[in-house]
Amino acid sequence: MPRYRLLIEYEGTGLVGWQRQDNGPSVQQHLEEAVRAFCGKDVAVMGAGRTDAGVHASGQVAHLDLTRHFPARTVMHAINHHLRPAAIAVIGCAEAAPDFHARFSARKRHYRYRIFNRLVRPVLERHFVWHVAKPLDAAAMHEAARILVGHHDFSSFRAAHCQASSPMKTLDRLDVIRLGDEVHILASARSFLHNQVRAMAGSLKLVGEGRWDAADLARALAARDRQAGGPNAPPQGLCLTGVDY
Amino acid sequence: MPRYRLLIEYEGTGLVGWQRQDNGPSVQQHLEEAVRAFCGKDVAVMGAGRTDAGVHASGQVAHLDLTRHFPARTVMHAINHHLRPAAIAVIGCAEAAPDFHARFSARKRHYRYRIFNRLVRPVLERHFVWHVAKPLDAAAMHEAARILVGHHDFSSFRAAHCQASSPMKTLDRLDVIRLGDEVHILASARSFLHNQVRAMAGSLKLVGEGRWDAADLARALAARDRQAGGPNAPPQGLCLTGVDY
Repeated sequence: MPRYRLLIEYEGTGLVGWQRQDNGPSVQQHLEEAVRAFCGKDVAVMGAGRTDAGVHASGQVAHLDLTRHFPARTVMHAINHHLRPAAIAVIGCAEAAPDFHARFSARKRHYRYRIFNRLVRPVLERHFVWHVAKPLDAAAMHEAARILVGHHDFSSFRAAHCQASSPMKTLDRLDVIRLGDEVHILASARSFLHNQVRAMAGSLKLVGEGRWDAADLARALAARDRQAGGPNAPPQGLCLTGVDY
Repeated sequence: MPRYRLLIEYEGTGLVGWQRQDNGPSVQQHLEEAVRAFCGKDVAVMGAGRTDAGVHASGQVAHLDLTRHFPARTVMHAINHHLRPAAIAVIGCAEAAPDFHARFSARKRHYRYRIFNRLVRPVLERHFVWHVAKPLDAAAMHEAARILVGHHDFSSFRAAHCQASSPMKTLDRLDVIRLGDEVHILASARSFLHNQVRAMAGSLKLVGEGRWDAADLARALAARDRQAGGPNAPPQGLCLTGVDY
């Protein structure tokens, strides 16, 4: 059973997220249907990150096993052919070792959260950003974000229905940079709790507005209680940009 | 009659272009209807650039006259309120001199043409780029583009139905740069012929693919015949990024 590793790009708008669900089309379902159309078999496509409804990916990784061998480029083009017109594309494909697992072999996941920080609502970028009209202090956000980097109990930034066995995670990177009208939050870790990036982004936005200072963020982290963290930032600003193995 | 100058952003997807037409919704129609909803009067909104169907703008400029005075910010927010949910927004508004004319006072117009140069079709950027799968030599495109800069007869890059009285135009800038998977063509001039940027982009793409060299482009320009120029690049890659006065 040759195993293939896929690099995948998708727009989350209108999808229920990565994972198959009963309430609408998912990325996984689109991919599995495309693979079935190509090889005639039911094949599971396992992703590295289970992105939520409305969340995008420019660098999602997944793996699948085929019952016979095809060149990697053939696999990529065949899946893409059957994916149309969904806003999902396989942008890279390579044969992988039999023990490669998109989810469990991942060493680091990279997310970017985009805030569109302008008085008037965005038009061109509207599906890919969170609109915050009030001017944000990106430097203050970056400085406060230092508090969250490292090994912590992230219960204050964790969805109630998060299935992780432990709230302890190591956050390797949480940088905040301004790019013109946009403020980007760049987060990297081996793994994240459910909604962790969006909850951190929602909290950092409070810092950027001046409603919280760094001490408030430290207190929120120390409380280990979701009620103490800021609200989730909306999904459309979030993008899974890459996974390291 | 106070005159106002508007800075406007829009996504051209699904619109028939800037100008009012019978065959579908235009940017001008959306704006004039929003102004009417705000002030109760039929007011003409005059734009600097008559962008085609599917062409975007991040920096279109227009002017309009109101019968009574409002603060510029009130005009902006009122028009934006009535524009929703169209993918059009007024991102700036200022009072203008009575003789300011968005179209005739313009000293320079700036366009950007985006080519998405990757084997696999774009997903996240699909409404804003022209997909060219074959690798392009952006340096060769830039070098050849020097031929078009300056004062020339641009008949070879002009739509058959172009209404300009003369095919003579002065092209001030035509730069080609690579940004990762994208190749951007940046064009600036006091004014352009109809379809000129798209015809130049379509011709430069032939150079980037190696199907044309710089001498072919020079011959195309010298022919002063639309048949000699390359095909029009599709509209969705084009964006009016700014207008100078």
